[in-house]
Amino acid sequence: MPEIRQNIITGEWVVISTERAKRPSQFARPLPDASAIPVHDSNCPFCPGNEALSPGDILRHPLSGTWEQRIVANKFPALTNVGSAQRTINGIYRSMEATGAHEVLIEHPRHDLILNKMSIHEISDIFRMYRDRYRQIRHQQYIESIIIFRNHGLRAGASLVHPHSQIVATPVTPFQVRMRMELAIRYYDDHGECLFCRTLHDELHDGRRIITDTEHFTAFIPYAALSPFHIWIFPKRHVSSFDDINSNEMSDIAVNLKATLGRLYTALGNPDYNFTIRSSPVRDSRSEYFHWYLAIVPRLNTAAGFELGSGMFISSALPEESAAFLRSVEIEV
Amino acid sequence: MPEIRQNIITGEWVVISTERAKRPSQFARPLPDASAIPVHDSNCPFCPGNEALSPGDILRHPLSGTWEQRIVANKFPALTNVGSAQRTINGIYRSMEATGAHEVLIEHPRHDLILNKMSIHEISDIFRMYRDRYRQIRHQQYIESIIIFRNHGLRAGASLVHPHSQIVATPVTPFQVRMRMELAIRYYDDHGECLFCRTLHDELHDGRRIITDTEHFTAFIPYAALSPFHIWIFPKRHVSSFDDINSNEMSDIAVNLKATLGRLYTALGNPDYNFTIRSSPVRDSRSEYFHWYLAIVPRLNTAAGFELGSGMFISSALPEESAAFLRSVEIEV
Repeated sequence: MPEIRQNIITGEWVVISTERAKRPSQFARPLPDASAIPVHDSNCPFCPGNEALSPGDILRHPLSGTWEQRIVANKFPALTNVGSAQRTINGIYRSMEATGAHEVLIEHPRHDLILNKMSIHEISDIFRMYRDRYRQIRHQQYIESIIIFRNHGLRAGASLVHPHSQIVATPVTPFQVRMRMELAIRYYDDHGECLFCRTLHDELHDGRRIITDTEHFTAFIPYAALSPFHIWIFPKRHVSSFDDINSNEMSDIAVNLKATLGRLYTALGNPDYNFTIRSSPVRDSRSEYFHWYLAIVPRLNTAAGFELGSGMFISSALPEESAAFLRSVEIEV
Repeated sequence: MPEIRQNIITGEWVVISTERAKRPSQFARPLPDASAIPVHDSNCPFCPGNEALSPGDILRHPLSGTWEQRIVANKFPALTNVGSAQRTINGIYRSMEATGAHEVLIEHPRHDLILNKMSIHEISDIFRMYRDRYRQIRHQQYIESIIIFRNHGLRAGASLVHPHSQIVATPVTPFQVRMRMELAIRYYDDHGECLFCRTLHDELHDGRRIITDTEHFTAFIPYAALSPFHIWIFPKRHVSSFDDINSNEMSDIAVNLKATLGRLYTALGNPDYNFTIRSSPVRDSRSEYFHWYLAIVPRLNTAAGFELGSGMFISSALPEESAAFLRSVEIEV
């Protein structure tokens, strides 16, 4: 019998449509030809030698000499650090100036190097850059929420091949983020514990949806994953704001993410994906209720009218099967 | 200065990124070659003569003789009318059987006829079929919400070319639908009026975002549209449940929708789109708070990491400009 499951962290329902279920391997495509992308592209604004094509460095690593990572302003920023967060309310019409931040982290000098092929040291440095910049931006005026994300591949909205991620800071708390905080608070009030800590505990105990378990992080497919191979990576330590990540955790999330993305890469043939770091709103950064995490969403399906018209999803993959398939894959270490 | 706007009906914020704004016509692609799709395809399960390829008729029009529209069960249904709505709650894990309905309305015998090229009479008949089937399904056991939608083109998730729409009935109220009811109720409590009636009144008064205004319906681009050319069509009469649409309204929505989709077709070169009918949950079908409407979402952009990670959107189109562009287009009548 097909099943409907609810994700109690997001409130969302998903129909696991076993009639339409594909075998996990049916989502795969052939691995790309690694030599198809050059190591350096003279037209790429993110390649070494073309630094003049992007606005100046906001943050770089190391501080001098040849850069390994750099953060620059987005050349076409949606939000900038001018203006104020004053709302203009004219009857039903509410607006404000687009104050905030919109920046790009160039992750590596090499044009062709995809994230799971980087070294653990390099990935860890990327997370250090995220953290350092998060800490700076949160003290900027009018910032309510900071979203770090990565688009990999055309279907995930990436317009440039060169490995990069983005940081957007908004002067409002997104409605969806607020709703999830409210669900987390209600759970805490009812149960006296963090909903995310409980989920992690129960997922580790059950085991069927676990993909990669390392010292400080666990990667798993949520029980009510909205789409095939949707993955969450939870820190084991209860921390609500991403920027409280410590050095050991920055090393370990690199180990975990490299293995998890490596499994996706091998199992599904380098799928397009987004990842995003879900952190508490800036003003709730010491919350007992919320727990930061990283979400990976492979873009294997197209949301259609039903999803747009209800916010509810139909998924053609059984989370337990997808997780078992990813665990079965051999990865390079 | 770029602007952030809030849609007070959905609670969602959107950054109107004028730095990235495209001229409205830049979203256009060339019109397709109308002769590329045959009038009849012998392999199409929805074409006349292939009725045996789909499960039997649930509803057909006319009742005998050659059909003009027919509703059949989806061959790979996500939800079926077996099972119960009993929740299984095992700690944090909540699930239930996938009871409900998942049906297809084959809109026309012709394989190649896209909706805005059909006659007003034919489109009106499609809405009559929606209404009649909605009225039947709502009395089926365990139904909480009925979603009618249409996927047009590959980017909108359509897997078959033959003109069709779908009806899905769920045994739960989707979380997003519930949240929007709560926003509507709060607005009613604060203001003593329907938020949708007020929006329609103010949009007609302002006029800049109106696309097609007919006797009983108004098509407009929401002030805080999440994506370019996102369109809402509101009935002028306050009715919360779609199935209370009357005969005059079924004729008039056909006039309005044909003109509105016709403008999109001509202006943007037959864009892929979804439309969906947003109706109140079955148990709230006489609500003073909620007001049914039809939403059209052209699929011109890809939601990326920011959107997935926050529920907030960045749109590259200014609603007032998009609406003016659509109004300026000549359409066949």
